[in-house]
Amino acid sequence: MNFELNKSIEILERTPEVIEVLLSGLSQEWVRSNEGDHTWSPYDIVGHLIFGEKTDWILRIKTILSESDNKLFEPFDRFAQLKENQEKSIDELIIEFKEVRIENLNRLKSLNIKQEDLNRTGIHPEFGEVNLKQLISTWAVHDLGHIAQISRVMAKQYKSEVGPWINYLGILNK
Amino acid sequence: MNFELNKSIEILERTPEVIEVLLSGLSQEWVRSNEGDHTWSPYDIVGHLIFGEKTDWILRIKTILSESDNKLFEPFDRFAQLKENQEKSIDELIIEFKEVRIENLNRLKSLNIKQEDLNRTGIHPEFGEVNLKQLISTWAVHDLGHIAQISRVMAKQYKSEVGPWINYLGILNK
Repeated sequence: MNFELNKSIEILERTPEVIEVLLSGLSQEWVRSNEGDHTWSPYDIVGHLIFGEKTDWILRIKTILSESDNKLFEPFDRFAQLKENQEKSIDELIIEFKEVRIENLNRLKSLNIKQEDLNRTGIHPEFGEVNLKQLISTWAVHDLGHIAQISRVMAKQYKSEVGPWINYLGILNK
Repeated sequence: MNFELNKSIEILERTPEVIEVLLSGLSQEWVRSNEGDHTWSPYDIVGHLIFGEKTDWILRIKTILSESDNKLFEPFDRFAQLKENQEKSIDELIIEFKEVRIENLNRLKSLNIKQEDLNRTGIHPEFGEVNLKQLISTWAVHDLGHIAQISRVMAKQYKSEVGPWINYLGILNK
């Protein structure tokens, strides 16, 4: 597939609801268990998605499209959610994620991005020049990666319960 | 986590709606593209889930709980969906999956499974004796595995679009 803005938005606008259906009202054991030391629970992952909305994607898009000469992106703290108040419920996090995502997609649409804008560039703090098309593609793929991760983390909670089927269930061996 | 029937049902009852939110109304390119020769598209995966509902899970549960001495499971055709009419829309498949899953969960609940039933066994055609707890755990993990797979297959459609971010997106390298 070649990049298209509208097809990227199709993914981005679905993610909060996918996560709501997956996690809302689910037992705490599914929501708060992880894959072991220094790994994330579904709860942590939703927190990470919220931080991305607040501090990463749309700000970087604006940096690329700005008239300023400073095209350097701010580094993104991928662990910020672990320092946050852990008392919020998963449903509170999901509502927050839905709100910030809708707001950011409205901002994205209001930027009125044209085909020629997709090749405009910014500077990533680690790997240098990237363009707008790559950034928006990554935003969508990042969503899908974390949906897959949430599914995997939940699946692993039953790793010792599936018995001999473990060899048929690739997700338990990732 | 230890197996609990209710916590397994929490997963099983969410899956059709997760898939509906992920795929319903999405562009055909997202729905019908796969990861290369002999791999499945999201469309194929939903077809596979329907076949599991019709020919696998609940029938095996009934075999385990039956009074018959024949505890051997029928082999499951994991490729049956590829021989089906491919003209149905993804929305038709999703509706079908929702219906058969609801029906099977109603059957599951009506079996009134007790704690001691969870250790009753059947014979898998390939790896022999398995118990009811392992079978129902596998049903839930199988769902989560295919949700992760759908997300991965979609993510891979943008593999060449993300540029240097490819090294940060683990899902593109699975």
